[in-house]
Amino acid sequence: MDRIQRLTSLFERFPGIGPRQAGRFVQFLLKAPLSLRKELAAAILDLSLGVRQCIGCMRFFSPDDDRPSCRLCDDPERDDTLLAVVAHDADLNALERSHSYRGRYFVLGGTISLATEARTGLREKELLASLVPRVRKGLKEIIIALPANPEGDFTALRLRDELAPYAEEHAFLVTMLGRGLSTGSELEYADPDTLKSALLSRR
Amino acid sequence: MDRIQRLTSLFERFPGIGPRQAGRFVQFLLKAPLSLRKELAAAILDLSLGVRQCIGCMRFFSPDDDRPSCRLCDDPERDDTLLAVVAHDADLNALERSHSYRGRYFVLGGTISLATEARTGLREKELLASLVPRVRKGLKEIIIALPANPEGDFTALRLRDELAPYAEEHAFLVTMLGRGLSTGSELEYADPDTLKSALLSRR
Amino acid sequence: MDRIQRLTSLFERFPGIGPRQAGRFVQFLLKAPLSLRKELAAAILDLSLGVRQCIGCMRFFSPDDDRPSCRLCDDPERDDTLLAVVAHDADLNALERSHSYRGRYFVLGGTISLATEARTGLREKELLASLVPRVRKGLKEIIIALPANPEGDFTALRLRDELAPYAEEHAFLVTMLGRGLSTGSELEYADPDTLKSALLSRR
Amino acid sequence: MDRIQRLTSLFERFPGIGPRQAGRFVQFLLKAPLSLRKELAAAILDLSLGVRQCIGCMRFFSPDDDRPSCRLCDDPERDDTLLAVVAHDADLNALERSHSYRGRYFVLGGTISLATEARTGLREKELLASLVPRVRKGLKEIIIALPANPEGDFTALRLRDELAPYAEEHAFLVTMLGRGLSTGSELEYADPDTLKSALLSRR
Repeated sequence: MDRIQRLTSLFERFPGIGPRQAGRFVQFLLKAPLSLRKELAAAILDLSLGVRQCIGCMRFFSPDDDRPSCRLCDDPERDDTLLAVVAHDADLNALERSHSYRGRYFVLGGTISLATEARTGLREKELLASLVPRVRKGLKEIIIALPANPEGDFTALRLRDELAPYAEEHAFLVTMLGRGLSTGSELEYADPDTLKSALLSRR
Repeated sequence: MDRIQRLTSLFERFPGIGPRQAGRFVQFLLKAPLSLRKELAAAILDLSLGVRQCIGCMRFFSPDDDRPSCRLCDDPERDDTLLAVVAHDADLNALERSHSYRGRYFVLGGTISLATEARTGLREKELLASLVPRVRKGLKEIIIALPANPEGDFTALRLRDELAPYAEEHAFLVTMLGRGLSTGSELEYADPDTLKSALLSRR
Repeated sequence: MDRIQRLTSLFERFPGIGPRQAGRFVQFLLKAPLSLRKELAAAILDLSLGVRQCIGCMRFFSPDDDRPSCRLCDDPERDDTLLAVVAHDADLNALERSHSYRGRYFVLGGTISLATEARTGLREKELLASLVPRVRKGLKEIIIALPANPEGDFTALRLRDELAPYAEEHAFLVTMLGRGLSTGSELEYADPDTLKSALLSRR
Repeated sequence: MDRIQRLTSLFERFPGIGPRQAGRFVQFLLKAPLSLRKELAAAILDLSLGVRQCIGCMRFFSPDDDRPSCRLCDDPERDDTLLAVVAHDADLNALERSHSYRGRYFVLGGTISLATEARTGLREKELLASLVPRVRKGLKEIIIALPANPEGDFTALRLRDELAPYAEEHAFLVTMLGRGLSTGSELEYADPDTLKSALLSRR
């Protein structure tokens, strides 16, 4: 396999990228200045050196110094009584962008696959291990903030079961994000579950 | 204008139908048996004779006899303490399909246009006029069940203002459908308002 | 079934219309003035009275008087040496809009279904029966102008076989529309057949 | 800017990639094994070392040895009488996949922007400079194989003008790919130019 095909096939492994777009990436890089290719290669290698997984929330971050936890976990202004469990780093970022949450985070690393029930990469043990220290700092509620789809729901139910004995022992709540009409929803097209939730959570 | 063009241009006035699909409707009717065309024409004329607007919820219905109100409004089993105000007949049908609401309905007839603030066809007066008899039958809560979009929100706020004096005088609640994650929503793509509502209505 | 459901289910038989849009059509008609419903019903019934199938090209048309053939077939300025065989009335209209064809037309009424090989409604016999009179008027070429898809291609091949003995006896050509790059096509996304045709028909 | 943001913003410069997908690429790389990141970085740097622009057709290729021209340009079996001028490497690949062309290629490097009339990166001079040697080897026809869109058409017309004096002096043809119905086209939706071309190139 020649060099163009080799790089094309590497890009094909990127999420959502097929052979045509992979080929276009390679053409883009071929026409780009050498400096861009060097910068890109360096930035990719730098991920290994300069990016760390936060020991608090488990997300990836790029530290300025040798501290082991991220800016959010280190921030003394955040509310220690709340812990949001999200599936992915991108979900944490989305909640931050909403400016409506001031608690702590834990990134679970995904959801359970309904096809295989595989939990590959899910950090449930790390979450459970972190509970006692968090309770000591004042934890009062864990908000399971997983996607509103079957895999998210299945993972949420399993997580709630696993958290139940800890919640009872340490007297914290386990809640789930509210369901209802999303912005833009029309009743006519809403599914029965969404309508039921919207009715139940009317205010 | 010839007969084919005339019928095409009538179909073009149907919601969501452009000239090409209107033309296809006419071709379909041209090839259809005469009996289908006769049945369709009769069914359209029948709307004028056999369809009535319910004096209770204001939706259109097709009565078997000369009763002035629809099956839902006549049903003594429905819960008189709840009244859901929806925009369209189709929204009423969606709530019925969800099997999660057992109260009464009122079809407002649309939402206020943000462009023009026009309330053409909105049945606010009819709604207000119906309140005292509904209170007498036990009304305790009006659920404003309008779409979760800017026009729905604007209409809901205006409606809440108009209902406020009645609500105070007759001691009923005015609520709105809960917002949150709709079925299928992922946090990463949810807008800040939806995330905020989902956090607020966590349970 | 009540009147609203009855009309909804009739609209559901329209091409491309599902239950939701059918319901929206009925709501539109319910809110429309009685005059529109009357006009629509009359226009639908009028198709039976006032629309005729042209004895020349077989398309539907709406005559002003009792002439049996359409404006295009009657037009002495059209070129009798050319006959375009199209699948649908809409294809005839598309060719007219292109202002690049001045010959005669024959509307075949569809294409052969590849699933069933059914020729329901195809007017091959009528086409063959019309050939001798057309030859007398000067026919020199039949252009098979069917869609560039598998069903169109299959129908075109069968039609060419059926026309072959007539073409030989009466010395007219049977051609097919040229294939190549359509406006907007990029080579990268073109299929091999289109590229091959584009190369063969380069000029 | 931290390392995650830095790599994200580099991926955002890739064609067709927005901030969200760029972020997803970085998450994918963060979770990937170190070996994949190393392989990717190496493959990107390798483009500079191991990929060369062919002196014949100007496309990028990855040579096994130090030969200056690509496999297609070196192949003695290809037809020297034909030269296809394409916009991009991907178009050359598409023509090869169609197995309907056996001549030589020249990759122009793009099309003229209609907005700016900029010809940045277009290799017209290199094309003109290559003509005399190609004529000596037997060139009889240049096929302008640019996309069937306004920019492709504009570039083709300019190219034809520039090639005209050479074509006259050296007695070769300049042709363009045929237009017509692409595979899958239906007449009803075809634009007038496509229908006109399809009629002109009927066979």
